[in-house]
Amino acid sequence: MNCKGPDSVNSCDSRASLSDDSGEAMYRLIGELYPICRSITGQGIRETFGRIQQHIPLTITEVPSGTQVFDWLVPLEWNIRDAYVADRQGVRIIDFKQSNLHVVSYSVPVAARVSLADLKAHLFTLPDHPEWIPYRTSYYKQTWGFCLSHRQYLELQDEEYDVVIDSSLEKGHLAYGEYYLPGETEEEVLISCHACHPSLCNDNLSGIAVATFLAKSLQACPRRYSYRFLFLPVTIGAITWLALNQRHVSNIKHGFVLTGVGDEGGFTYKKSRVGTAGIDAAFAHVLRHSGDPFEITEFIPYGYDERQYGSPGFNLPVGCFMRRANGAYPEYHTSADNLDFVKPQSLSRSLEIVRSVVGVLESNRGYVNTSPYCEPQLGKRGLYRSIGGNVTGRSAEMALLWVLNQSDGMHTLLEIAERSGLPFVTIKLAADELESQGLLRRAG
Amino acid sequence: MNCKGPDSVNSCDSRASLSDDSGEAMYRLIGELYPICRSITGQGIRETFGRIQQHIPLTITEVPSGTQVFDWLVPLEWNIRDAYVADRQGVRIIDFKQSNLHVVSYSVPVAARVSLADLKAHLFTLPDHPEWIPYRTSYYKQTWGFCLSHRQYLELQDEEYDVVIDSSLEKGHLAYGEYYLPGETEEEVLISCHACHPSLCNDNLSGIAVATFLAKSLQACPRRYSYRFLFLPVTIGAITWLALNQRHVSNIKHGFVLTGVGDEGGFTYKKSRVGTAGIDAAFAHVLRHSGDPFEITEFIPYGYDERQYGSPGFNLPVGCFMRRANGAYPEYHTSADNLDFVKPQSLSRSLEIVRSVVGVLESNRGYVNTSPYCEPQLGKRGLYRSIGGNVTGRSAEMALLWVLNQSDGMHTLLEIAERSGLPFVTIKLAADELESQGLLRRAG
Amino acid sequence: MNCKGPDSVNSCDSRASLSDDSGEAMYRLIGELYPICRSITGQGIRETFGRIQQHIPLTITEVPSGTQVFDWLVPLEWNIRDAYVADRQGVRIIDFKQSNLHVVSYSVPVAARVSLADLKAHLFTLPDHPEWIPYRTSYYKQTWGFCLSHRQYLELQDEEYDVVIDSSLEKGHLAYGEYYLPGETEEEVLISCHACHPSLCNDNLSGIAVATFLAKSLQACPRRYSYRFLFLPVTIGAITWLALNQRHVSNIKHGFVLTGVGDEGGFTYKKSRVGTAGIDAAFAHVLRHSGDPFEITEFIPYGYDERQYGSPGFNLPVGCFMRRANGAYPEYHTSADNLDFVKPQSLSRSLEIVRSVVGVLESNRGYVNTSPYCEPQLGKRGLYRSIGGNVTGRSAEMALLWVLNQSDGMHTLLEIAERSGLPFVTIKLAADELESQGLLRRAG
Repeated sequence: MNCKGPDSVNSCDSRASLSDDSGEAMYRLIGELYPICRSITGQGIRETFGRIQQHIPLTITEVPSGTQVFDWLVPLEWNIRDAYVADRQGVRIIDFKQSNLHVVSYSVPVAARVSLADLKAHLFTLPDHPEWIPYRTSYYKQTWGFCLSHRQYLELQDEEYDVVIDSSLEKGHLAYGEYYLPGETEEEVLISCHACHPSLCNDNLSGIAVATFLAKSLQACPRRYSYRFLFLPVTIGAITWLALNQRHVSNIKHGFVLTGVGDEGGFTYKKSRVGTAGIDAAFAHVLRHSGDPFEITEFIPYGYDERQYGSPGFNLPVGCFMRRANGAYPEYHTSADNLDFVKPQSLSRSLEIVRSVVGVLESNRGYVNTSPYCEPQLGKRGLYRSIGGNVTGRSAEMALLWVLNQSDGMHTLLEIAERSGLPFVTIKLAADELESQGLLRRAG
Repeated sequence: MNCKGPDSVNSCDSRASLSDDSGEAMYRLIGELYPICRSITGQGIRETFGRIQQHIPLTITEVPSGTQVFDWLVPLEWNIRDAYVADRQGVRIIDFKQSNLHVVSYSVPVAARVSLADLKAHLFTLPDHPEWIPYRTSYYKQTWGFCLSHRQYLELQDEEYDVVIDSSLEKGHLAYGEYYLPGETEEEVLISCHACHPSLCNDNLSGIAVATFLAKSLQACPRRYSYRFLFLPVTIGAITWLALNQRHVSNIKHGFVLTGVGDEGGFTYKKSRVGTAGIDAAFAHVLRHSGDPFEITEFIPYGYDERQYGSPGFNLPVGCFMRRANGAYPEYHTSADNLDFVKPQSLSRSLEIVRSVVGVLESNRGYVNTSPYCEPQLGKRGLYRSIGGNVTGRSAEMALLWVLNQSDGMHTLLEIAERSGLPFVTIKLAADELESQGLLRRAG
Repeated sequence: MNCKGPDSVNSCDSRASLSDDSGEAMYRLIGELYPICRSITGQGIRETFGRIQQHIPLTITEVPSGTQVFDWLVPLEWNIRDAYVADRQGVRIIDFKQSNLHVVSYSVPVAARVSLADLKAHLFTLPDHPEWIPYRTSYYKQTWGFCLSHRQYLELQDEEYDVVIDSSLEKGHLAYGEYYLPGETEEEVLISCHACHPSLCNDNLSGIAVATFLAKSLQACPRRYSYRFLFLPVTIGAITWLALNQRHVSNIKHGFVLTGVGDEGGFTYKKSRVGTAGIDAAFAHVLRHSGDPFEITEFIPYGYDERQYGSPGFNLPVGCFMRRANGAYPEYHTSADNLDFVKPQSLSRSLEIVRSVVGVLESNRGYVNTSPYCEPQLGKRGLYRSIGGNVTGRSAEMALLWVLNQSDGMHTLLEIAERSGLPFVTIKLAADELESQGLLRRAG
């Protein structure tokens, strides 16, 4: 197997691993994970990690409830076995077993008969989308609640209901999964995704799937960088990991959060807090040359775990890669973010983009022209002969000239690609050719 | 009384002082000052200072004629008692007592009988605006002249006229007014306006009125900065003040010239020579969030006394705040710049803007997040509960996150406001809340 | 004679030399040079230098074939006496004596009878422009060929042809011409043009003509800079000159390649590799104020000899001045680039522009305001009296104020011109006036 992405210049060819059915394979993984009731702690997230382990050897870390992680405490572990609201005839009119979105995540146990009025104080709906069930959580305030379609809500009769939530909120552990792929250096690329949402496909089973398959495809590739894949409960998971790994984060040279990459929308890359990091330049370049619609947005301290990686004490160069941004589509955090909402081909293309970005990171460096006074004679080295009259040929010739001209040790290949307007892969191929001819050496 | 401006976050509430009738009060002051014949020296400007002293305790400085001030000499003092052109029947057809604009300022004394042709060599009109009287001066070349409407000019008969200007141009003094409001530090904000124009309302009785009421409203407020208000004859007054106070100008951290702030046009802020000074950022921010039409223009070495403050030897961060810019409206420097041309509500809104700017200057500083590793847990401090689903609430939450994220000691609140797109006041309130919770401390 | 260009401020007046007939004179020189068969070596380029020497005293350098110049070798010398393709009746159907474009430059000698099919492998045409003969070369691969109109190509009968090329490719020399005009300092301005193209007028007899007349017009002027004019075979000539003069290039402070300046298109200035060099600013300023259509393009490592001057080992501040850019017009490198394609008035205006640029380079420097505290009193020095109400006068006044305001030793006159929006010449005249009044001195 080898690893060169379609638009990338990584040193192994991806066609083996990135076959046309990678989209289908990622979609199947999402299908397996979809029914599981995940939360920020509990068996759901552990079961999820178990499924991922069938693809990549995740290491699971269990952190006890009550552990101080910076300003936070690791919370109690939440587990749920059953939950329902039943009418006077004993019919379960809202049933956790039909959709785990029906229960507000982290609901405390309850078993009571309540009036409709009292019940309504614990119900959540989406009046604008009357068929959809919202996704709600209450991690840090002990309460209980049910989510249901607004249509069903309107049909509720004014009678008494039996409410049962068979959950537990007890001392236990917060679990996260980690996969570290060592490279030539300890400098690392961090890929982080949250794994705590229940039956929601785009947010974030899509991120989990693409991260898993990216990891898989990098296993057999030579790697200049080490790669660290994190599967975490959002916010508290990233905070916990950062707290336990504070001394190692200086190794992180590039990183991105992966989420919402399965829908059919255009791409969104949200820049790191730094804003001018290598990862920001790499995503911007790859997206600009992708032919796909995309948007580059500025960092804001709201969204996913880039908030934590980009807190001022860390200020890590970690962006966030999505298709439609969080909150920018109505299906977000509702039962409509289901298996129909994500598409194999969207997953596949998202994977191609991140592989191209990894290709840029891997290959990007500065070179020094060893023949810097005037242009070297390309013709006598056979480099000019390869240049035909067609556009490809002209790009290749221009790439040779650009690399020679700009390789003064002060410009990276990515910068040369940007200045020339040529794709990184064209510039990298030119650099390889010039290096093999001794006309270029790597900058100190 | 306290001093918080409507869009500002100053530490006292302005509603007492900035009541709805502040516009009317400023307009009344303009009405009082309007009839006085001011020039760069003489009794008119002294009388003007006397009226201002009924509002704020101006210190008057008198500088003798002939005093060397940098490259200039303080000029002779000019005073005028009467002036007219009378026809052969003794009828005053042009009469200083009807409008002080009729006489070219600094006209030398004259008493002569002249032909129409000779008279015309001393007459100034505005052919494009035949009903208006122009405003003309001849400070540095000894001559005399009359200004009149072009309509009247065209009606002049070819006969002899008696010309009388009962003026004096003698050794005396140049007077300027100064009001210094000390603050916590000697660092000061300079507000400068010219007070030498005769019966012209917008240019610059409006600036005098707004400066006076700004000074008045700041008296009872706690002040981090000291404030210096200057009421000067244009050019020579600023030069004189700078010459006499050269050693103290290093205290000036921010400043602006106030002029033409009573008309109904949109706002104009002309940047300081520096162009990137705090005052430039503060005006740009306040105007951008004001909802009013406005324009920010680059510094040019032409206009008002920002030319002197921004000469290369001083290079002070002093901009110029106007509504319509000098020369950008036909009424400029004509009799049409009268009591109808300025409006109480325009004056009032101009005062609000400068008070907001002062509020930004007072409150702007850098902070350090005391919990910089990951986000602190806002919920447990009750900061999250205050955040509802409505837009205001979301702004408040975003402001907390922005302030925490950017408070690394390298960004001021104004910079955070600009980066976040939120109004300064929202950012400042968030900073106050975080500071009171111990999550923020002021940067060294 | 003196040398002030029409838009420039050089210290001598150009009207003597730059009379209305300079365009005609340049056009006549082009007419003389047009018939000569030039190549990168051989008698044609020497004869060309001989004609230029009738205007300016060129020094000719002869470099032996086989000399190592950086990564290249000076090639064999090529000369041609005759060449034709004759039909079976002995009629020369393609004849070098009718147009030297008919022979591929550097064709090896040949004398053979060939079939139409074999002949066609050596023929070049322009199907899109069936009446034009293309210009082709084969400097570094030994072959032979003919160029002809596509119309004629289509008429060729299927018979045998006699092919004769009476050329020689032997050890000899590469010749280049150089004219050095010493100035007050050894800092120099490089003007480089290629002189190796056969009967092509715009590319580059126009460049040769304008360079020659620029040199001529500068001879009698006082010169702060030294000027070096190079007439070279493209690529190998610049490489050879750089190789032989490597130690002296550090004197080159500004430079430009001159080519394609005789057509009727708008101007194109291609920036130096540095991109922010003085020459880049000077051309941008002069073109912006020229009233002519123009385009400023970024440096790319393709085009003319700016590629060699801008190789990373040299990185010289050398741009390229053209009218329509190379390749941007269909006549480029065809027989249609003939005496009809270039115009006297185009040549004349191109010369005016480069003279204005030279004027900017000569006069541009930083000054220090000797009266930096507030504005000096211009009126008492008679500088204010010269300022009328008309636009010219107002520009002159504004120029005085801008120069005084910005002359803090950190801004050059060109920077002041750019910031003020005024033409350089207006700023320079203001600086001269202020300097003569003692209000300005030259910055260290």
